[in-house]
Amino acid sequence: MTLTNHRFTLAARPVGLPKPSDFEYSEQPVPEAAEGQVIVKILAISLDPAMRGWMNDGKSYIPPVRIGEVMRAIAIGRVIASKHRGFSIGDHVSGLFGVQEYALSDGKGVQKIDPDLAPLPVQLGTLGMPGLTAYFGLLDIGKPRPGETVVVSGAAGAVGSVVGQIARLKECRVVGIAGGADKCKYLVDELGFTAAIDYKASDVKAALAEHCPKGIDVYFDNVGGDILDAALAQLALHARVVICGAISQYNNTAPVKGPSNYLSLLVNRASMTGMVVFDHAPRFGEAIRELTGWRAQGKLHSREDVVHGLATFPTTLLKLFKGENHGKLVLEVARS
Amino acid sequence: MTLTNHRFTLAARPVGLPKPSDFEYSEQPVPEAAEGQVIVKILAISLDPAMRGWMNDGKSYIPPVRIGEVMRAIAIGRVIASKHRGFSIGDHVSGLFGVQEYALSDGKGVQKIDPDLAPLPVQLGTLGMPGLTAYFGLLDIGKPRPGETVVVSGAAGAVGSVVGQIARLKECRVVGIAGGADKCKYLVDELGFTAAIDYKASDVKAALAEHCPKGIDVYFDNVGGDILDAALAQLALHARVVICGAISQYNNTAPVKGPSNYLSLLVNRASMTGMVVFDHAPRFGEAIRELTGWRAQGKLHSREDVVHGLATFPTTLLKLFKGENHGKLVLEVARS
Repeated sequence: MTLTNHRFTLAARPVGLPKPSDFEYSEQPVPEAAEGQVIVKILAISLDPAMRGWMNDGKSYIPPVRIGEVMRAIAIGRVIASKHRGFSIGDHVSGLFGVQEYALSDGKGVQKIDPDLAPLPVQLGTLGMPGLTAYFGLLDIGKPRPGETVVVSGAAGAVGSVVGQIARLKECRVVGIAGGADKCKYLVDELGFTAAIDYKASDVKAALAEHCPKGIDVYFDNVGGDILDAALAQLALHARVVICGAISQYNNTAPVKGPSNYLSLLVNRASMTGMVVFDHAPRFGEAIRELTGWRAQGKLHSREDVVHGLATFPTTLLKLFKGENHGKLVLEVARS
Repeated sequence: MTLTNHRFTLAARPVGLPKPSDFEYSEQPVPEAAEGQVIVKILAISLDPAMRGWMNDGKSYIPPVRIGEVMRAIAIGRVIASKHRGFSIGDHVSGLFGVQEYALSDGKGVQKIDPDLAPLPVQLGTLGMPGLTAYFGLLDIGKPRPGETVVVSGAAGAVGSVVGQIARLKECRVVGIAGGADKCKYLVDELGFTAAIDYKASDVKAALAEHCPKGIDVYFDNVGGDILDAALAQLALHARVVICGAISQYNNTAPVKGPSNYLSLLVNRASMTGMVVFDHAPRFGEAIRELTGWRAQGKLHSREDVVHGLATFPTTLLKLFKGENHGKLVLEVARS
């Protein structure tokens, strides 16, 4: 029996927000695995802000998705055919399998995962790339010390919510910036943030001044734009700014808004450092063990926003850029 | 005999470029030194871009000069009266003596200097705060390694020219950015820079791409604005950007131009760090010894642009912001 694969390829480089016509939805037979290859049936696809950057041409930390290529995405699936000695039928695996139902892989960059460790959406979120991004960005670059004030933007998102909770575990004061009263309530009531600022309803700069009376020691930025500027204006001496993302700028058609207040780095002898999680791959195992341990102890909570159906991809992705997702956004492709 | 002191006080906070009317020139008798005080006859005053920032109200790394206060400046002078056990008549000293002919001081922050070590303008430049800024900013924050490419803006200035020469001593390729063919020729022919870019005559971004084919490992920024953006666009992986100043922005009446290309920090896992030389005071002695040694060995050259006459201060200062100074700008107040 020949299986059919449905997939989204990149049809055009988006200008501004990705439109449905920027992708082509098509079907084709699933190929046979050749020697050294596996076929993975994809179960759950991680939808991440970084995907918007991968659609752009130009130099970045990873080559752009080519026009006509399956849209790149991290996913978890189950091996259904294997001619690769490292993988057996039934293995659960994660990798850059793309926005499709079946992936043919040579096993490079593919990790076996334990499906019983946590629900798959959690393994794509808190225990996946977003959790690892939070872990290394905060601990290795932000280097928070007990008693310091940590501020994180995109705080209710997959990365930000883990940043804030790890900072609490490290005995910091944590102020989250998120859009909407619901998200802010969630940060304080359920995740234990010290305070939360609703950027849609507040003057962020004034609110940061109120909640960070001694200034910001670590600012973990997922959003860029005016919120980055507001945070720079409140830095404490020797502050560390972690540049993880800039979701407010990804769909700009105008040039990126540079941070006008960058001279606060000089005034405060502060640093601003970019991070890409893939650089920390040699320590992923160690980090996942620690994150898993915190989760088992009830110290690391998460929400996942699971949308069913591969075909919804173009519209589901937009939830990220409209701030409509509540927690880690995952596209469920198949139940098993 | 009563001596008369001429001085410039800050009369108004400048909007844009400082105007003569932003200062008040006045005279008054030189006071007597009380117990624990000295009177310093000022010989040479250092004119630095940072002075523009000191005229602004608002939080910075040092309190603003108050309206009516003598304009702050680093200067070298000679003790002509002393009731301070640490200083004797005839001692040469440096300190924040201000834009005037005579300073009354309690000795705090005042350093004795050896007038025979080098001409006083050199001691205000290469062997003074600009040289120390270059030394600590480049070595402690930029951390250049042999074979790396170092780019410095304001390269013909008091800080930039020392940055480039130290980078050469550390076996780096060095590209300077300066305004005008004369300055660029000086950088390459006399200071040994690998290349120089005339920002007034070139597309800086294209020229950086040409002269830094492997990207920029260390960018030492004195200017901000479009040149900072051009440098960010060419960073190498793990680059270090040192934010020392932003002379292009100091006289802005519009908001500071933030660096649009700051996401290059993310793409290249690079860092941008602010520095203030005063933080390194405990190691000034060590640095001055090393700079003096390089100078004695003929490895550290400098030019000084010495203008005579305290009364010229308001117009002489503007040379800095118009890029008209050739080397360290010094106001000579008295010969001895």
